[in-house]
Amino acid sequence: MKVLFYNEYEHERKEGPAREMYPGGIHTVLSEQLKKIDDTLEFSFATLQDHQQVITREKLKETDVLIWWGHMYHHKVDDDVVTMICEAVNEGMGLVVLHSGHESKVFRRLMGTRCGVEWYERQDHGRIWLLDQTHPIVQGVPNPLEIEAEETYAEPFTVPVPDELIGVTWWKGGEIFRGMSVYHRGYGKIFYFHPGHETLPSYYNSGIVKAIDNGIHYVAPRVRVDEVTSHHIEPHEP
Amino acid sequence: MKVLFYNEYEHERKEGPAREMYPGGIHTVLSEQLKKIDDTLEFSFATLQDHQQVITREKLKETDVLIWWGHMYHHKVDDDVVTMICEAVNEGMGLVVLHSGHESKVFRRLMGTRCGVEWYERQDHGRIWLLDQTHPIVQGVPNPLEIEAEETYAEPFTVPVPDELIGVTWWKGGEIFRGMSVYHRGYGKIFYFHPGHETLPSYYNSGIVKAIDNGIHYVAPRVRVDEVTSHHIEPHEP
Amino acid sequence: MKVLFYNEYEHERKEGPAREMYPGGIHTVLSEQLKKIDDTLEFSFATLQDHQQVITREKLKETDVLIWWGHMYHHKVDDDVVTMICEAVNEGMGLVVLHSGHESKVFRRLMGTRCGVEWYERQDHGRIWLLDQTHPIVQGVPNPLEIEAEETYAEPFTVPVPDELIGVTWWKGGEIFRGMSVYHRGYGKIFYFHPGHETLPSYYNSGIVKAIDNGIHYVAPRVRVDEVTSHHIEPHEP
Amino acid sequence: MKVLFYNEYEHERKEGPAREMYPGGIHTVLSEQLKKIDDTLEFSFATLQDHQQVITREKLKETDVLIWWGHMYHHKVDDDVVTMICEAVNEGMGLVVLHSGHESKVFRRLMGTRCGVEWYERQDHGRIWLLDQTHPIVQGVPNPLEIEAEETYAEPFTVPVPDELIGVTWWKGGEIFRGMSVYHRGYGKIFYFHPGHETLPSYYNSGIVKAIDNGIHYVAPRVRVDEVTSHHIEPHEP
Repeated sequence: MKVLFYNEYEHERKEGPAREMYPGGIHTVLSEQLKKIDDTLEFSFATLQDHQQVITREKLKETDVLIWWGHMYHHKVDDDVVTMICEAVNEGMGLVVLHSGHESKVFRRLMGTRCGVEWYERQDHGRIWLLDQTHPIVQGVPNPLEIEAEETYAEPFTVPVPDELIGVTWWKGGEIFRGMSVYHRGYGKIFYFHPGHETLPSYYNSGIVKAIDNGIHYVAPRVRVDEVTSHHIEPHEP
Repeated sequence: MKVLFYNEYEHERKEGPAREMYPGGIHTVLSEQLKKIDDTLEFSFATLQDHQQVITREKLKETDVLIWWGHMYHHKVDDDVVTMICEAVNEGMGLVVLHSGHESKVFRRLMGTRCGVEWYERQDHGRIWLLDQTHPIVQGVPNPLEIEAEETYAEPFTVPVPDELIGVTWWKGGEIFRGMSVYHRGYGKIFYFHPGHETLPSYYNSGIVKAIDNGIHYVAPRVRVDEVTSHHIEPHEP
Repeated sequence: MKVLFYNEYEHERKEGPAREMYPGGIHTVLSEQLKKIDDTLEFSFATLQDHQQVITREKLKETDVLIWWGHMYHHKVDDDVVTMICEAVNEGMGLVVLHSGHESKVFRRLMGTRCGVEWYERQDHGRIWLLDQTHPIVQGVPNPLEIEAEETYAEPFTVPVPDELIGVTWWKGGEIFRGMSVYHRGYGKIFYFHPGHETLPSYYNSGIVKAIDNGIHYVAPRVRVDEVTSHHIEPHEP
Repeated sequence: MKVLFYNEYEHERKEGPAREMYPGGIHTVLSEQLKKIDDTLEFSFATLQDHQQVITREKLKETDVLIWWGHMYHHKVDDDVVTMICEAVNEGMGLVVLHSGHESKVFRRLMGTRCGVEWYERQDHGRIWLLDQTHPIVQGVPNPLEIEAEETYAEPFTVPVPDELIGVTWWKGGEIFRGMSVYHRGYGKIFYFHPGHETLPSYYNSGIVKAIDNGIHYVAPRVRVDEVTSHHIEPHEP
């Protein structure tokens, strides 16, 4: 399973709470956590700094699943790279969009909507209720999945109705959020999952890590567009 | 708009808090509240005591929308009446299922599932977040819709994935609930809406009353099965 | 994979074209076809004659997937057996409903609708177009999947909107049919697939057999209701 | 009801069969047909030639529904205009996309997919089967809706699963097409409807005209984003 992990990697390079929480970056810590429970994952990495060099059409062709974490610098992501990624998803590549990636160019373009959320800065207790316990993404994940402290993302979340609504988050502060969903686009699938503020320990939470691991496997391609033969048929009668 | 309101009407006939809250029965109070804001509604009523006499095939044929409130005596509802109602819904009659009606024979048979909920007796603060503000059912309803105190119905709610998920309830106690949904069955539509414990003032809450009024209009039939001509066609080639 | 195959087995016991096409019964022939391509399947069988003896609660508990083929004698299937099966599906057992099983008590009760179809007796050329080529059920199945001759089932098919619409059948005679769909009910999944008239060779068609095999694996339970721990939580604040 | 009708208007300006079929352009003929059955519609028009002048932010703000017909020159439509339209749809404006508009920049951007179809040049007999006869868009439309001759658009149609699948087209030549669907994006709704080749008489077909008229009313906004008050709430506990 070839996983390409894009992490903006700006917060954690500067001295401060993000670097303390995720030394080496969110991509380094989360990939390590994932590898502890799943030895089939082979990671490579891209950051804002090098994404134009790393994320090429060739790289995407050999990638099973792309993970996307970005926050402050969505506007600096190269438009041609975004186009290539959206094409690759439509051709079958899986995509996992984490946390503030909901406002990334990639996610917004695939959704066709603004992908806005209501947003509160407090570090609130969240609790994800799993709506379909038979879904592959929630196997081995506790129900509910408790999140000690997270940034509050809340409805209205201006996305299309999810193709698969897997979990809804309850916030102690009074909100809810459809923050665990799957969308289908072309031959590809997209898993959006909301935990992951850069200064909070969500990516050390075993239930969250398990859900991301399951999500990677769920959106990995079964088939890609170039493996599909033409559907052109001879007309029924001449 | 001909609305037939079935209320079990056992709690409110006995001395106690239900009778104090809803003198004359939930059906009497809620229909009065609805008529205050909508003069197109013509109500008739059925209760557990008389439902076998009132709910006949002829009555259902001239009914646009049936409202169902039941709680303790689902098992005493006549099976033949249940069958007639399910048939009428499939033929186009609208159905509004309130509160504990989620476990009624009618709702369970139309869903094909157990329709169970997690249930907590505390009178908790609920807050319904409206997911689609363009939906006819939420026009004129505040978002969020606050419920001062209600019986907690919570996930897992063992129903099929709703055809239209309109609202999700947040509970102060820590749960969520898909308690405002529309399901399609045959030519009929079903609106399930969770507020309405017999000792609590939900049916005096103007937002809840407005949503029920909108719901009645939304599930009212546009077309009934006997107005539809046969779809049999001549085969394309002899 | 423990598969229990219910076949009404009335047509094929009498001398005539059904017995010639499916000697030993549809269940015998189709299970043999399936075993040729999948050695994980362990079959047991029930028929109209013995279904009350064979289909017990214990049997259903150890069954992964139930296949259902019935036609003329739906009304003779025991109501208690039907109830047990619907319960088992809600608890996680998979169900594959074939051909005229669309009007079985089991399917109708799980759907909550009449499950009627328009029906034409001619043996028409059908062509199933696969709408989602990434779906597990269509892997290895040609697109389109040609059916030499089948009984025409056509819209309107009075079922709920499928949770997963996998294929739509084109008929030479001029109709279409949503005859390849998955429905979710409780912890269980149901695969409906329309080919299989008792005098026609559909169950020798390798694409149809492959789709049924995939369907068995797709609806097989990942989790059953009794493996799920209680979701009751302590209220957030005392 | 203010309807802005964009027609590319290149085919019909040149001498030939398109001009003979639709003198004055598709927009002229179809709007006349619509006004014959609906006197609430007020039309204005844009073409490829003048779309940058006509389709401004102010114009879109006062437009209820935009109709889009384009074919050969999608690539010449101004990107900023496309962005404004997609924003307007997300803010609540209705959109009706006709025929070859499936490959327009506007539709593709709102879908997030390629929106490709299989395509055959023959003028084939099509027949649209209506899947939900209770839907507002099909009231007064015959089922099936016969199309004498049309360009064949066929599956795979690489769009997301429709939010509302209203009709599926059968083609005499052997294909099917999900060519009558509604998609929700933000506060807006989009109706895609496939008939309308520039040299064929579909926009004189009374059933097709009726469906387009119903579609205009169905996607017209009930509410726009700026009429919605903020959802920000005070946190539950300080």
